[in-house]
Amino acid sequence: MTRVRIAMFASLDGYVSADQSPENPMGEDWERLTAGYVATRTFRQRVFRDTSGDGTTGVDDSYAAAYFEGVGAEIMGAAMFGFHSHPDDLDWKGWWGEEPPFGTPVYVLTHTAPRPSIPMEGGTTFHFRNTAIEDVLAEATEASGGLDVRVGGGVSTARDFLRAGLVDDLHVAIAPILLGRGNRVWDDLRGLELTHKVTSEVAESGTIHVTFAR
Amino acid sequence: MTRVRIAMFASLDGYVSADQSPENPMGEDWERLTAGYVATRTFRQRVFRDTSGDGTTGVDDSYAAAYFEGVGAEIMGAAMFGFHSHPDDLDWKGWWGEEPPFGTPVYVLTHTAPRPSIPMEGGTTFHFRNTAIEDVLAEATEASGGLDVRVGGGVSTARDFLRAGLVDDLHVAIAPILLGRGNRVWDDLRGLELTHKVTSEVAESGTIHVTFAR
Repeated sequence: MTRVRIAMFASLDGYVSADQSPENPMGEDWERLTAGYVATRTFRQRVFRDTSGDGTTGVDDSYAAAYFEGVGAEIMGAAMFGFHSHPDDLDWKGWWGEEPPFGTPVYVLTHTAPRPSIPMEGGTTFHFRNTAIEDVLAEATEASGGLDVRVGGGVSTARDFLRAGLVDDLHVAIAPILLGRGNRVWDDLRGLELTHKVTSEVAESGTIHVTFAR
Repeated sequence: MTRVRIAMFASLDGYVSADQSPENPMGEDWERLTAGYVATRTFRQRVFRDTSGDGTTGVDDSYAAAYFEGVGAEIMGAAMFGFHSHPDDLDWKGWWGEEPPFGTPVYVLTHTAPRPSIPMEGGTTFHFRNTAIEDVLAEATEASGGLDVRVGGGVSTARDFLRAGLVDDLHVAIAPILLGRGNRVWDDLRGLELTHKVTSEVAESGTIHVTFAR
C-alpha cells in the first residue's frame, strides 16, 4: 500500500533557512541544519557517490537510509526544483546534475504552462504539472508501482500536503540550534498529533528526530 | 556559585498557551503541555502535597526533582504572579494559596509603584520591584544564600533575561503536540547554542527535554 511521506529539516525554533541567494540557494543556515544528515554514510553514498564507507552509522544514518528506501515517485514544488531562481532558463534541469539522486519519476508543481518531461540519467524523469495537488498525487501514486510517494519539499509544498490531510508519514530532523528567522516549518498544523502518532528520538549528533505516522 | 536558571514548557512548534481567561488562567492548552510533568511523583509531592508516593519516576521526574532543588530565590513577571488578571485587588497574593511551593524570597517584577512585601507560610515572601532586571537579579542573588536563582516566568520575562545574557541554565520541556498559536517561546534567541551547550533527551511520556547550559 502506497504511503505518502515527507521528510524535513528544522531548527529547534521551527525554521528552515531563508536568505536564499544565487550563490547559496538553500540559505545561509542550511549547512548547520543538515550537518548530522550530511555526515551519515548513507548520505555520502547516495548523494556524494562516496563508496569509501566513511560516514556515521548511528541513529542519523538509520533515518537517512529510511529516507532513500521504498520510494516509487517524488513530488516537489517549483522553488525546490529551482524555477524561482531560474525563471527564464528553458534548459534548466534542476540542481542535481545529469544523474539526480531520485531514480524515480519526479512531479514538479508549477503555476506555469506545462513543459515537456525531461528524462535524466539513473531513472529520474522530471514531469511538470500545474493541476491540483490531489490530482498530481493520484498520478504519482499510480506511477509509484506500489512503493511510497515522497513529497520532497520545499516547506510550503510540504505544508500544503499536510494541511490537506494527504500525508501518512512526516519525519522532521530538528537540529539543536536556534535560527530566529527563516521559513516556518510548523505553521498551521495544530492538532496533527491527534491524527498521527508521534515518536521522538535523539541522535548522537544532537539531532532530534520526530516522526508523525498515521 | 549561584547559577541563574529558567525552566519552560513549549509545544513542538514553540508555543505556550495563550487564550488565558479568568476561568483558565494558564490557557486552554496548558494541561496538555504539562501532562508529563504533572504526572511525576515529584510534582505530586511538591505541589499537590500528595504523600502517597504515586506518580511517575522516570526521566520526567528527574527533571521535576532538579527543578525544585537548590533554588534560593525566585524572580517572576507580573503576569505570572497574577497582577494582569487582578489589577485592582490589593489583597491579591498570587495563585498558590497560603503556602506557595517556593519556600524562598520571590521577586515579582512590576511596572507599578512598589507595594509592601507579603510574607506567606512555608518560607515564601513576595517582594515587588519595578527596577531594572539586572538590579533585581543582583538582589535575588544576594538573597539566595549561594543557591541558584530561578527566573520562573512567564515567557516574556524569561526571554528578557535570556536576551540580556543573564541565564546560565535553560530547560525547555517540549510536549509532542502542535498548538499552532499562543505565546512564542523561542523568539529572538538566535545563536543561543553558540554560548550554551545543548543536550536533549526524550522521556517515557514523549516529552523532549532540551537544556542549554553555559
